[in-house]
Amino acid sequence: MLTMTFSYPNGKKYHAPAQEAPAETKTENDHVIFGKRGMRLEDAINDSNDYYRSHGRAVVYKKPTPVQIVHVDYPARSQAVIKEAYFRTPSTTDYNGVYRGYYLDFEAKQTKNKQSFPLKNYHQHQIDHFRRCLAQDGICFTLMQFADPDTVYLFPASTLLDYWDQYQGRHSIPRREVVAAGYTLSVGFAPVIPYLDAVDALIARTAPQRKGTIN
Amino acid sequence: MLTMTFSYPNGKKYHAPAQEAPAETKTENDHVIFGKRGMRLEDAINDSNDYYRSHGRAVVYKKPTPVQIVHVDYPARSQAVIKEAYFRTPSTTDYNGVYRGYYLDFEAKQTKNKQSFPLKNYHQHQIDHFRRCLAQDGICFTLMQFADPDTVYLFPASTLLDYWDQYQGRHSIPRREVVAAGYTLSVGFAPVIPYLDAVDALIARTAPQRKGTIN
Repeated sequence: MLTMTFSYPNGKKYHAPAQEAPAETKTENDHVIFGKRGMRLEDAINDSNDYYRSHGRAVVYKKPTPVQIVHVDYPARSQAVIKEAYFRTPSTTDYNGVYRGYYLDFEAKQTKNKQSFPLKNYHQHQIDHFRRCLAQDGICFTLMQFADPDTVYLFPASTLLDYWDQYQGRHSIPRREVVAAGYTLSVGFAPVIPYLDAVDALIARTAPQRKGTIN
Repeated sequence: MLTMTFSYPNGKKYHAPAQEAPAETKTENDHVIFGKRGMRLEDAINDSNDYYRSHGRAVVYKKPTPVQIVHVDYPARSQAVIKEAYFRTPSTTDYNGVYRGYYLDFEAKQTKNKQSFPLKNYHQHQIDHFRRCLAQDGICFTLMQFADPDTVYLFPASTLLDYWDQYQGRHSIPRREVVAAGYTLSVGFAPVIPYLDAVDALIARTAPQRKGTIN
């Protein structure tokens, strides 16, 4: 990787960006025609989150991409233009929110494969974040999409971590194991990805009893 | 406000930015010498979140400032520089996370006043977000700091909404009412702002019974 070491006229040092632009700004993940709409997976999830929010079902958002802002111009009072900024590596997963008093936390991934899901699609900081949230009894999962666009799987993060810890990223999860350990969601409409249906089942499985008093 | 209407050479329209730079990029809120450290309130909270996270107490983060990215340069492969972006109005409050299975959501505000806290420090989108999260049984609050730096109050969002709905923003909350309805935190060390102590009390008050089964 080319590195540059120079200072700006104002004395500020040039900082090599923490990472390249995140995948969502590139077009490699747009290959999947999602359902019948040509919608990207991220857009389908945001659409579903908008649906759930406007219907009072849950309050879930995608976290904004973290950027390190270096220079802002003010072409007019009350107008700001960011003229130099760099992408930062996130510390968390992409989505979180609240549903029936539970903390939801998830990451969405897709693969061009049809029958196996590469663990390397996940990144260490996402795994670490899942581990911390699970330790606090958060409801954590990943939404996984294979090459066919009409199905999305909700896969528990605890199971993902089992695979991660066992194989250290050099492995793919066979689709039949995703089906067996996860929940199958049919891509549809209102919402596009009805993931809350599976979240109810995941909650019943992992958090059937809640302590209400202070420990 | 000056508005410009022109197109870039690539045909993209110029979009007037949604808002000016957020307060945190300005220096007006830096006037408070926080504790004995000269630390801004936001830094003190982030410090406290880091402490709680590294000690396995809670997983709470400040949400990144949302920006609309218009142009990215790639001075070298795997290096990206954002050359044009605009600040977007957030849809949510600044902080959220998970603690003992509960969803935490909060906003931090400070005032130069000593005895009253202006409601106009809060913005409609923050109030709307609190309302939605409270409806989902999220544990929601605001951290309020007056001119003196050694005390921060944790004030329940439900009470804030009561004031907001009654006065529609044209009011200040007297300090004695903040003390009465809120929880007093002493600015200290490890962590700087021990807000989880008050969260335990707020949980006991608002969510003593948790339903674990699907409704």
